[in-house]
Amino acid sequence: MTMKTDRSKRDLQNLARVAGNGLLDRRALLRGTLTGALTGYALVRSVSAQQLTEEAWSLAPGTTVTDYGTRSRFENNVVRTLSNPKGEARTQHARTPHHLLNGTFTSNSLHFVISHAGNPDIDPDKHRLVIHGLVKQPLEFTLNTLMRYPMVSRMTFIECGGNSAPLFSPDPIQDSVQALHGLVSCAEWTGVPLASLIDEAGIDPKAKWVVAEGADAPHLSRSVPLPKALDDALVALYQNGERIMPGNGYPVRLVLPGWEGNMNVKFLRRIQLTELPNMSYYEARTYAPVLPGGKAYQFYFLQEVKSFITHPSPGLAMKGPGFYEISGVAYSGNGRISKVLVSADGGKTWGQAALQEPIHSKAFTRFRMPWRWDGGPAILQSRAWDESGYAQPTRSQFVATRGQTAKVPAVTAYPSQHYNAITSWSIERTGEVKHVYA
Amino acid sequence: MTMKTDRSKRDLQNLARVAGNGLLDRRALLRGTLTGALTGYALVRSVSAQQLTEEAWSLAPGTTVTDYGTRSRFENNVVRTLSNPKGEARTQHARTPHHLLNGTFTSNSLHFVISHAGNPDIDPDKHRLVIHGLVKQPLEFTLNTLMRYPMVSRMTFIECGGNSAPLFSPDPIQDSVQALHGLVSCAEWTGVPLASLIDEAGIDPKAKWVVAEGADAPHLSRSVPLPKALDDALVALYQNGERIMPGNGYPVRLVLPGWEGNMNVKFLRRIQLTELPNMSYYEARTYAPVLPGGKAYQFYFLQEVKSFITHPSPGLAMKGPGFYEISGVAYSGNGRISKVLVSADGGKTWGQAALQEPIHSKAFTRFRMPWRWDGGPAILQSRAWDESGYAQPTRSQFVATRGQTAKVPAVTAYPSQHYNAITSWSIERTGEVKHVYA
Repeated sequence: MTMKTDRSKRDLQNLARVAGNGLLDRRALLRGTLTGALTGYALVRSVSAQQLTEEAWSLAPGTTVTDYGTRSRFENNVVRTLSNPKGEARTQHARTPHHLLNGTFTSNSLHFVISHAGNPDIDPDKHRLVIHGLVKQPLEFTLNTLMRYPMVSRMTFIECGGNSAPLFSPDPIQDSVQALHGLVSCAEWTGVPLASLIDEAGIDPKAKWVVAEGADAPHLSRSVPLPKALDDALVALYQNGERIMPGNGYPVRLVLPGWEGNMNVKFLRRIQLTELPNMSYYEARTYAPVLPGGKAYQFYFLQEVKSFITHPSPGLAMKGPGFYEISGVAYSGNGRISKVLVSADGGKTWGQAALQEPIHSKAFTRFRMPWRWDGGPAILQSRAWDESGYAQPTRSQFVATRGQTAKVPAVTAYPSQHYNAITSWSIERTGEVKHVYA
Repeated sequence: MTMKTDRSKRDLQNLARVAGNGLLDRRALLRGTLTGALTGYALVRSVSAQQLTEEAWSLAPGTTVTDYGTRSRFENNVVRTLSNPKGEARTQHARTPHHLLNGTFTSNSLHFVISHAGNPDIDPDKHRLVIHGLVKQPLEFTLNTLMRYPMVSRMTFIECGGNSAPLFSPDPIQDSVQALHGLVSCAEWTGVPLASLIDEAGIDPKAKWVVAEGADAPHLSRSVPLPKALDDALVALYQNGERIMPGNGYPVRLVLPGWEGNMNVKFLRRIQLTELPNMSYYEARTYAPVLPGGKAYQFYFLQEVKSFITHPSPGLAMKGPGFYEISGVAYSGNGRISKVLVSADGGKTWGQAALQEPIHSKAFTRFRMPWRWDGGPAILQSRAWDESGYAQPTRSQFVATRGQTAKVPAVTAYPSQHYNAITSWSIERTGEVKHVYA
């Protein structure tokens, strides 16, 4: 045991400190480098076959395998939080529990949902998608027809323009990463490129926009510039291998990689080519907040580069000093994440995090940073860059441009949109994790 | 309409035929190239806002969003088929419905499961993983401890050694791709590299194998050569972002990318370093069939390169002549898929399929091939190559080496293992799809 302790101390000293307050070089994640640094966490005792405890589940047959698998009852707490659990006549939000997940995308049952009138119960055999307006020949598609077209798969995040809105508050709201950043998720979407269907209908040269409309009760519609519709827009039929769930647009959803979530129209039933945007409810009202200078922030579609730390985060308390992996997600509507820096001292010094390969464009990239917490105060931050060179802004940079809280007309229920600045977690001596501005 | 028809004919003629019986160049999948080729499928009529049918779901609020999303009731037929639905005291198989899915991986509820004594109901707070045997210091890990270690994510397929066993039959068995190839699935697994934990315990130089054992009633155990355990083996905690479901090993599974499914020990509770393999039930009996030459096919772990067409496939009837996308999955335990060829004339001529990027090592790669079916007989085949240069064998090559049906001792319940040769679907004039040997 003494020898082991000596080796642990020596190895810990050899781990390269890359930034202040215990951040280690990301190469410490490579095999062998951390040997000894972690031993303290395992219960070390003499173990043999005879000494393994035989719990009840090791002594009798288990439950029958079912045709559609379900989770362990011990995971039933891993759920989306609901803003309107009784389904009253207003918008419903279901937020992704990022602190309880890991990996690079979100399972369908936990993908965030915003619904303005509940989930419609659409019969796919009766659903139709029409393309009309400024086209050479209007077309109507059944689901069976769409299924015959060539498909592609894209791993992409979808983020509500209002995600992270609590960070517009003048004081840091004490809540979980789920409450603060739970309106973004990432999935593999498979379907037909919208360009194929528009080409089929033929474009009238006067067309500059497409108006997409859903088949749910609000007939939610949004205007999309034609170049985006012809670029990477997808008429999606599958999410993570399965048909899309009702909350995310069954049977067919418009997916606009990297653009404001509300524009990814669910229950897609209409694509109308037009000369002008149609100034629909959401683009004229909710997503047109007034900026500090007096201009409206309208027709700003891109979800710019962002990152946040999921582990540790509020609610996941630290369990004593020692080694931890800081981990989180980074993403950008501009393309691939090129770099994520992490700080443990509130932004004074920074170290470069390891990025999980392969890095998909416009998708979650999991970053990981080795950290030895000495038990003292620390402020954790992450900051991401994308391949276009755009850097996630600091909070003070962001507030200077966009306001502490956006000044909005009284009619607008949503105070703020498109927050993408740095999030800070304070680690207290008790191990508690708090949301702070730093 | 006349002009449209003329243009369609012209464009169809311009599509490069890349192989016999209507196979088109994969570049036909690029935007614009197929314009006109598909028009026949859409209902062409004058469509305007006023003419869209307002179904019931467009006229009233839908159902309330829930904390854990579920599928549309119209998708309840997308299920795994069960070999033992009542959970009798024998093995249970749940097969993945590849013909009803799309994209590049399998959702957790539809990932294949083989269970020898049902799903244990493991309390994660009581579960322990021990590393012992030829180590310098035995270690015991709780789930909370494992969660502190640095993690990685790997997209990887897991395939039962007995997947595709029906193709050992002397006559082609008429059944779906789910029945024939449903014991392979692909997921993103996230967890701690096994090498980190073994390094922590310290390796006795005499150790050559690790014996992995599960906590379910059969205490299923398999021997793994130490080099694989130290290479890309993962002590997995998450599958597709969520904690692993019980059928796939909750709360912790050994994942050995590219190796025989049965070795990916579920409910992992023990890693014992040993000098010799332990000749456990599955390695000494089930996975040691006798080859035509009289030798036993034992300790052969790799799942070699394979592909099969999922669309079209038996049960998905063709709906008249015209354009179709042939699509399927390819994978190899050796690494990345480098090439997939498709034939529509039973292997006389071949065209190269488009591969969905990014191509992950030891994971499903979706291939797609444009095809114009003229309504006549056709035999569809796919053949994959991996980056090691290994080619999926033809059925005759495979049978020559491995036997038409492996000659096995009477005690062995599983007749055949590791079938990876070409699968052939015959397209009948009626549009029906049949399984044939060609």
